[in-house]
Amino acid sequence: MSEADFDRVRRQVREFVAARDWDQFHSPKNLAMALIVEAAELVEHFQWLSEAESADLPPEKLALVEQELADIQVYLISLAAKLNLDLIAAVDKKMLLNAQKYPVDKARGNSKKYNEYE
Amino acid sequence: MSEADFDRVRRQVREFVAARDWDQFHSPKNLAMALIVEAAELVEHFQWLSEAESADLPPEKLALVEQELADIQVYLISLAAKLNLDLIAAVDKKMLLNAQKYPVDKARGNSKKYNEYE
Amino acid sequence: MSEADFDRVRRQVREFVAARDWDQFHSPKNLAMALIVEAAELVEHFQWLSEAESADLPPEKLALVEQELADIQVYLISLAAKLNLDLIAAVDKKMLLNAQKYPVDKARGNSKKYNEYE
Amino acid sequence: MSEADFDRVRRQVREFVAARDWDQFHSPKNLAMALIVEAAELVEHFQWLSEAESADLPPEKLALVEQELADIQVYLISLAAKLNLDLIAAVDKKMLLNAQKYPVDKARGNSKKYNEYE
Repeated sequence: MSEADFDRVRRQVREFVAARDWDQFHSPKNLAMALIVEAAELVEHFQWLSEAESADLPPEKLALVEQELADIQVYLISLAAKLNLDLIAAVDKKMLLNAQKYPVDKARGNSKKYNEYE
Repeated sequence: MSEADFDRVRRQVREFVAARDWDQFHSPKNLAMALIVEAAELVEHFQWLSEAESADLPPEKLALVEQELADIQVYLISLAAKLNLDLIAAVDKKMLLNAQKYPVDKARGNSKKYNEYE
Repeated sequence: MSEADFDRVRRQVREFVAARDWDQFHSPKNLAMALIVEAAELVEHFQWLSEAESADLPPEKLALVEQELADIQVYLISLAAKLNLDLIAAVDKKMLLNAQKYPVDKARGNSKKYNEYE
Repeated sequence: MSEADFDRVRRQVREFVAARDWDQFHSPKNLAMALIVEAAELVEHFQWLSEAESADLPPEKLALVEQELADIQVYLISLAAKLNLDLIAAVDKKMLLNAQKYPVDKARGNSKKYNEYE
């Protein structure tokens, strides 16, 4: 993956939406709804599987899961663009907060207090 | 944003999880659940706002929304890594499918048939 | 609606699941996932509609929304039964908490502080 | 539980909302968003638990889960009322459809084709 790739994807998503005149539907409120709908389609693939099965998907199911991940990424990029936010910078800032919230010595292997990334 | 950035983020997420020995909780099933929980925290910020208000957030609310976008991106990266999937390649493939599914001449400005990225 | 109805629905759901030997898949964890997937199918019907349009659905769309509400109610009943919880008693208790959390004089028409039922 | 109970709950929810003049925020679109946010708070309680753990919650966690179930039920009642739909009648109709979609002899114990209530 190269940076050109990530920027290219963002540009392609923007052009895809503009070409269809769909920007009128893309309020942040609506995009957040669309994103959670895609997240649920992802969850649906896993809902009746054991955790072990979820880590060992047959190829045809993995291909469907890959599509859901892509849908989520596309809406995430669209929403960030709409709000003038930089996803990578946002992750950088959040990872610093997470490191403070979950210091290694206290968080290590702790399932009881496990409460990651809230 | 540079490619080094996106790859760096992926590596940092992996190291963050490994340092805390949290990999044991990160089955794809559980990560999908965590991702939708973060998506809902995003939705919560918008649920009582009008669409216009959602496009004009006050700075302190925008900062919270930015954190939710980061959380979703982090889980998306974690889940893709767990499944040995490349997010950018996944988006590339999906955008081709979307272009076939929603040809510009039919989809243009069409809210009735609007059914993007399903 | 009569009480016989609500209890009958609960019994019918239980028998439906038992007849298909599906209880083995119905851990609370899995039922919670199934419930949110149905909630997302509900959200999907509304995601590109304006608020006004969402209050004035054409009959064929209303019929689909009705099915999603039913699906959510069925999983809610199943999950409550699995956890030995009484849904009506749970609502009674929560409504008392909500009344304390949102006193009428402070909450009245207040969209800024509007934060219902969290 | 008696019918008086279920109807009483519906009436109390309606009066609670009316007393606070919150009806103005309760478009079906917004209520669907609120419902999925509550569903996610339910999912959050289960996301890092094994399926076995999810069926054996400590009392203090069970009490929190009970509150989430109540929140979902309240929004479900509010949304059905807003759309002039009868939840019990909706479930009755859906259970008939489910019985046709999943005949006992084919569905019995079948995890591969398990795809309940979609």
